[in-house]
Amino acid sequence: MNHPRTLRVDYDQTASVMCVVGSELNVNLNRSAPPSSKFFSVKCTPSVQYSIIPTPLKESHLSPIPLHGKSVLLIGMSRASQHENDSKLSIRYYGESEEVLGRAVLHLTAVEISLDVDADRDGVVEKNNTNKGSWKWGPNGHGAILLVNCDTERKFRKKLDSESEEVSEHSDLKDMTVMALRTKGPAKLPEGYKLTMHISQGDAESVRVFKLRSPDTTGNILKNLFYKYFEKAFPLVLSSKVLSQEVPYLGGTAEMNFYVEGLRFPDKDFNGLIRINLSLLEPISTGLPETPIFTDTVVFRVAPWIMTPNTLQPSEVFVCSTSDNYRFLKSMRSLVAKSGYKLNICHEYMNRGDRWMQDELEFGYIDAPHKQFPVVLDSPRDGKLKDFPYSQLLGPDFGYVTRMAEEDDVSSLDSFGNLEVSPPVTVNGKDYPLGRIIIGVAFPTATKGRNMTKVVQDFLWAQKVQEPIALFSDWLYVGHVDEFMTFVPAPDRKGFRLLLASPDAGYKVFRGLRNAGHGQAKLFEGLKDEEQKTVDEILDDEGLRGENNYVQHCIDWNRDVLKRELGLDEDDIIDLPILFKLVPDKKEEEFRALAYYPDMVNMIVLGKNLGIPKPFGPKVNGRCALEAEMCALLEGLGLSCTFINDFASYHKLLGEVHCGSNVRREAFDFKWWNLEM
Amino acid sequence: MNHPRTLRVDYDQTASVMCVVGSELNVNLNRSAPPSSKFFSVKCTPSVQYSIIPTPLKESHLSPIPLHGKSVLLIGMSRASQHENDSKLSIRYYGESEEVLGRAVLHLTAVEISLDVDADRDGVVEKNNTNKGSWKWGPNGHGAILLVNCDTERKFRKKLDSESEEVSEHSDLKDMTVMALRTKGPAKLPEGYKLTMHISQGDAESVRVFKLRSPDTTGNILKNLFYKYFEKAFPLVLSSKVLSQEVPYLGGTAEMNFYVEGLRFPDKDFNGLIRINLSLLEPISTGLPETPIFTDTVVFRVAPWIMTPNTLQPSEVFVCSTSDNYRFLKSMRSLVAKSGYKLNICHEYMNRGDRWMQDELEFGYIDAPHKQFPVVLDSPRDGKLKDFPYSQLLGPDFGYVTRMAEEDDVSSLDSFGNLEVSPPVTVNGKDYPLGRIIIGVAFPTATKGRNMTKVVQDFLWAQKVQEPIALFSDWLYVGHVDEFMTFVPAPDRKGFRLLLASPDAGYKVFRGLRNAGHGQAKLFEGLKDEEQKTVDEILDDEGLRGENNYVQHCIDWNRDVLKRELGLDEDDIIDLPILFKLVPDKKEEEFRALAYYPDMVNMIVLGKNLGIPKPFGPKVNGRCALEAEMCALLEGLGLSCTFINDFASYHKLLGEVHCGSNVRREAFDFKWWNLEM
Repeated sequence: MNHPRTLRVDYDQTASVMCVVGSELNVNLNRSAPPSSKFFSVKCTPSVQYSIIPTPLKESHLSPIPLHGKSVLLIGMSRASQHENDSKLSIRYYGESEEVLGRAVLHLTAVEISLDVDADRDGVVEKNNTNKGSWKWGPNGHGAILLVNCDTERKFRKKLDSESEEVSEHSDLKDMTVMALRTKGPAKLPEGYKLTMHISQGDAESVRVFKLRSPDTTGNILKNLFYKYFEKAFPLVLSSKVLSQEVPYLGGTAEMNFYVEGLRFPDKDFNGLIRINLSLLEPISTGLPETPIFTDTVVFRVAPWIMTPNTLQPSEVFVCSTSDNYRFLKSMRSLVAKSGYKLNICHEYMNRGDRWMQDELEFGYIDAPHKQFPVVLDSPRDGKLKDFPYSQLLGPDFGYVTRMAEEDDVSSLDSFGNLEVSPPVTVNGKDYPLGRIIIGVAFPTATKGRNMTKVVQDFLWAQKVQEPIALFSDWLYVGHVDEFMTFVPAPDRKGFRLLLASPDAGYKVFRGLRNAGHGQAKLFEGLKDEEQKTVDEILDDEGLRGENNYVQHCIDWNRDVLKRELGLDEDDIIDLPILFKLVPDKKEEEFRALAYYPDMVNMIVLGKNLGIPKPFGPKVNGRCALEAEMCALLEGLGLSCTFINDFASYHKLLGEVHCGSNVRREAFDFKWWNLEM
Repeated sequence: MNHPRTLRVDYDQTASVMCVVGSELNVNLNRSAPPSSKFFSVKCTPSVQYSIIPTPLKESHLSPIPLHGKSVLLIGMSRASQHENDSKLSIRYYGESEEVLGRAVLHLTAVEISLDVDADRDGVVEKNNTNKGSWKWGPNGHGAILLVNCDTERKFRKKLDSESEEVSEHSDLKDMTVMALRTKGPAKLPEGYKLTMHISQGDAESVRVFKLRSPDTTGNILKNLFYKYFEKAFPLVLSSKVLSQEVPYLGGTAEMNFYVEGLRFPDKDFNGLIRINLSLLEPISTGLPETPIFTDTVVFRVAPWIMTPNTLQPSEVFVCSTSDNYRFLKSMRSLVAKSGYKLNICHEYMNRGDRWMQDELEFGYIDAPHKQFPVVLDSPRDGKLKDFPYSQLLGPDFGYVTRMAEEDDVSSLDSFGNLEVSPPVTVNGKDYPLGRIIIGVAFPTATKGRNMTKVVQDFLWAQKVQEPIALFSDWLYVGHVDEFMTFVPAPDRKGFRLLLASPDAGYKVFRGLRNAGHGQAKLFEGLKDEEQKTVDEILDDEGLRGENNYVQHCIDWNRDVLKRELGLDEDDIIDLPILFKLVPDKKEEEFRALAYYPDMVNMIVLGKNLGIPKPFGPKVNGRCALEAEMCALLEGLGLSCTFINDFASYHKLLGEVHCGSNVRREAFDFKWWNLEM
C-alpha cells in the first residue's frame, strides 16, 4: 500500500496536481490556511474522492467546517483522467464570522501506473499483483523469477549472453523475464512529469533491463528498418552503468514490455533477490532534481543452479574417445543404445587424452515459469578437457557457469566426481524435494588435507534449494565421493537405494567362496599383465584386511552422516562387495585408498540399466562371483546390470565407468520455487 | 542429538571402544557375524546400556535370540569411566542348533565431553545447554554472543586488539567470550585418542580462540614464571592460519576455559554467525588421519554495532577548539556543565582547524551478556580531524571500527551528520526497540547525485538490529539529514518528537509578524557584516518564496518517508520555522539548499536541555520572534531551549551546533539479542 503523499496547497492559488490512482494525497489544511481562518469547506468533481480528518460532524462539506490545528484532507482519484486537469477540487477558508478569507483550487490529473511481473508464477504477467513487491517461497508463495542469461545465442565466436550488453538475437529475449509497464491516462503526461525506472547500485551487479525500441512514430520506414537490422532493436534501459533511466509514457491505455536479464547466480555475497522500481517524477524547476511522487516496485529471485540425481530420466550420455578405449566405447555405445538415449562422444582433438568426463563438469539446469534450460557447471579442475564445457556444450539454450580458483587452491577434490546429488528425501519432517548435494572434503578436524575449493563450495551452498552435505573423501587417493557411493532408482521405499562400497561385504563374499570350496578361484583371471590372486591369498593377507578395516571405518563414518542427513534407514542402503588397498601419496607421507579391483559402485545409471565396472572377480562355474553378488543385490529392484570392461583404459588409470562418463538428465517436475524454506 | 555411530565388531576379537556419554554406538550384528550364524546373545557390565532392533521377544538376552538380516545392537554408556576399559559387553553367535560359533568382546571406556558457552545469555557458562548448537533471536531465544575485540589494551603504540594474534594484557580476556571444555573420564584417554577444536575456513576470518597455558606440571616454578611474564600466557588455539588444533584432555572431572575473540562485524558477506567444534578423534594407524567419532558444536553471533538516539542519556560531549570559536566554546561549556555532563575538547593540534566533530565519527556501542563498551565508527570523510577517532578515542574498553572507501567514492554525504538514529518505534506492529538508523542519499531515481558510499551503507544494513531508512538529502548543499531533522525526548506519546525544518512554518511566523505590525523588524539585526532584511522584504521576495516551496517539497517527501517508516502520526512531528535559500553547486549546474539563518533544527540534545543555533530573527519587544516560537513549540514538552551563537564560527561555514559537536550516550537498557527477527 502506498502511504499518502504530503501535498502543499497555497490559498489564493490554482495548482495542477498529478495523482496516481490507488494512492492518496495528504493536505495539512491548517498549514496553508490564510491567517485567522476558522472554518473551511471542500468541493470537487465526481472522479475525486476525499475524506477529512478528524471526521466533521456535518454531512455536507459545502458549508463551513471548523478548522482544527491538525485538520487533514485526504484526496484520491477513482479512475484515470482522459485529459490533463480534468478533475477539480477546491477548498474555501472562512474567518470567525464565516466570511471567505481565501480559496485554494486543485486541478487534478489521474494516471494508472503498474509495473507488472509474473508474481504468481503461472507464466503470465498479471496486472498489479498485490504481492509483486516481495518474494515468498512455497506453493502459496509469490514473487517473480529471473534466469541468469548464461547461454549464448551465437554459435560462432561465442560469448555468454550475460556478458554482452546487447540483445544479439530475438531468441535471446526468451531467456529473459518479461516485465510490463501498464499505464492509463491522458495522451501525454503534464509538462515536465516523467516515468523513470531505477535499481540500486547493489542490484545492478546482478541484473540488466532491455526494452523494445519504440517504432519511429514519424512513420519513417527506412529509419525503422535501420533500427531493426542495424541498430539496437532492444535498447538497454538499466545496467551497472545506468541505474536510472526515463521510460516513455505512451498515453491512453498502454502496455510496454521490458526484458529483465539475470547476470549472476546466488553466491556468498548475493542472496538472489533483485528489486526493480518505477517512479513517477514531478518537475520542480530547472537545475533542481525531479521528485519521485509515486514508486511501484517488483521483486525477482534469480533461479538457482539445480543438479539432477541418478533417479531422473537421462537425456544424453557423454564419453571421451581416446587412442586406447575402443572396447570401452563399444560397450558404452551398446548400453546407451539399449537404454534408448543419445551418446555424445568427445573426440581426441578436444579431449587431448583427458578421459575423465565426469570430473571436468557437472550438468544441471535453471528453471523459471517461462523457460528452462540445462546449465553446465565447469570445474576449476581444468584438465586437458577444460575447453569442452565452453566450446562444446555452451550454446543456444545451453548455459554455462564456472567459478575460478587460484591454481594453488585446486586439488583432486575439485573434480566433479566429487560432486553428486541425492534423490528427493525427507529428513525429520523436512522435505528436500530436489534432493541434497553431496561433496567430499577432508575431515573437519584435519590439520592438513585436501578440500573442495572455497569458491565452489560457496556457490553450491548459495543455491540453497539442494542444501549440501559434506562427506569425508580425503581418505581416498583420488578423493571423490563417487568412489564409494551412488544412488540407483528403486520401485519401493523412498524410490531409491544408496549403494555404498563395503570391504566387509567384500570379505563376506570371499569368505563365502572359501567356505564353499572355492579358495583357489582367482581374482583377475584372464587379465594379462595383472597379478592374479586366489581367494585364499586375499583372505590370508592380514595387511590387506587391516587396510580394508580402515576403509570400512571411513565409509562407515560417511554412512552415518548420510543416514542422518538424508534420513535413511538400514533398508535404504545396499553394501556392495568392494575391496580397497592403501597406497602412499605422492609425498609418501600418508596412505590413501584405491579400489583393489574395479570399483563397482562407480557405475553409470541410465534408468534401470546400470553400466558397472567389470570386477574380474573369482569365478565359480564360469561365472564371476562378484558380478553374481551384484546381480543378486540389485536385480530384485528391477535393475539390469551390464558389466563393462574398463580395466586397462580406466581402472588402471585410477578411475572407472562413472569417472569416464557423464549424463545429462531431465529436470525435476518439482519446481524449486515451491520449496518451503 | 548425536546420531548413533556405526561400530564394526569382529567376532573372535576383543576390541577397545571409546564411547561418549549421551551418544550411541550402532553395531550391525549380521555384518560381522561368523558364517552360518542363526542366533546371538548379549551380556554386559552395569554401566553399559544397550537395545536390540528389532526388539527380541525374549526377555533375557543371555539366551540365544534369532539373528535377522538387519539385526542392530545399539550401545550407550550411562556414566563416565573411572579407568580405561572398565566396562564390558560381549556378543555370542550361535549356529542352527545353538552351538557357539564365535564371540565378540568390547572393552568400553566412557567419557563425558561438553563444549560449553553462555547460550542462555545470563553471563554464566552453563553445562551442555541443549540449544548451544544454534542461534535464535528473542527473549525466548538462545545462542552465545561474541564481541569484536575492537578496542586496544595498549595506551601507547596502539593497535586494535583484534589485529594482534596475542593477548597482550590480562584485561584483554574480558573482551572475549568464555567457552569451557568440560570433560569427565579416566585419568587419560586411551592411547592415540585425542581432542581437537576446529572451525571452518569461512569462520576463521571472523574469530580467534585462545586458551590459558596449562601450568608446567613438573612444578618448575621458574618455567611457570617465564610463561607468565615472558612467553605467551594465552596461546592461540584457532585462527585463520590454524583451523584445527589438539586441546589437552585433563582427566578426571575437569574444566578448561577458552577465550573466543570476534574479529569482524557483520557485513554484506558475513551474517555474524560462527561455529566452533570440538571433536574426539580415534586413531587408526600411522600415516592415516584420525577419525572424528564425536563432535560437539557451539554457535556464536557477533554483536552488532549499535547507535544511540538523542533520547538516551548523554555521557560525554565533544567539541573542537579553534582559533575563532572561543565564544561558542564558552556557551557550550556552560550548557554542558548545566546539564551535568562531561565536556571533551579536541584541541587545535589534533583537529587542525577541522571543527566538524559530528561529521568525522559516530558513537555507538557493542553489547554482550559479559561485557559492553562504546565503539566509534570512523567516517571515510577523513577531514583534518581524521586521526581523532583512532588516536584519541580508541583505548581500553573503547572500540574503533571504520570502513575504507576509494577517495572518488567519498562525498559530503559520507559525513556522519548524515547518519542518525531514531528513538525506539513500533511500525505496523513491528517493534524497533533500538530505533532505526537514518541516512541521507540521492533520490533513488536520480541519474546523478551524491550518495553515502556503498561500503558504509553495507555495514549499516548488515548490523540488522536498527534497520536503516534512506532519506533524500542530496537537495541540500552540504547534504546531511541533520540539516532538516532531529529527535527530542518527550514525556508523552512515543517518548519523543520528530523535529523537522519547515519553510512553511517559517513563513507563517513571518506573516504573523507582518500582520501584527512588525513588517519592519529585521532579521540579523546587530550582526555586523551581515545584510539585514526586514520581515516585509523577506515576505515580498518571490524568488525566496519559490526556493522555500521547493525545500518544503523536499522535506515533505522525507516527512512522508519518516511517517511511514517510523509509524509516526502528525502529532509526533513538530515543524520548526526555518527558511532556506538555494545556491549553485560548485559546478554551477544545479542548485542546492542552505539554511537562510542559523538552522535551529541542527541542535545538540542533552537530556531536556537543547543547545539551539541562535537564529538572529526579527525582534518584537526586544525578543527574537524565532526563538520565542521555538520555545513555544518545545517548552511544553518540558524541554529547555538555550540559544547558542554559532553564527560566525559555524553557520557562516555552512554548519551549526550539531555539526560542530558530538555526544556519546549511555547504551540502551534493551538487549539487542532480545529482538524478535
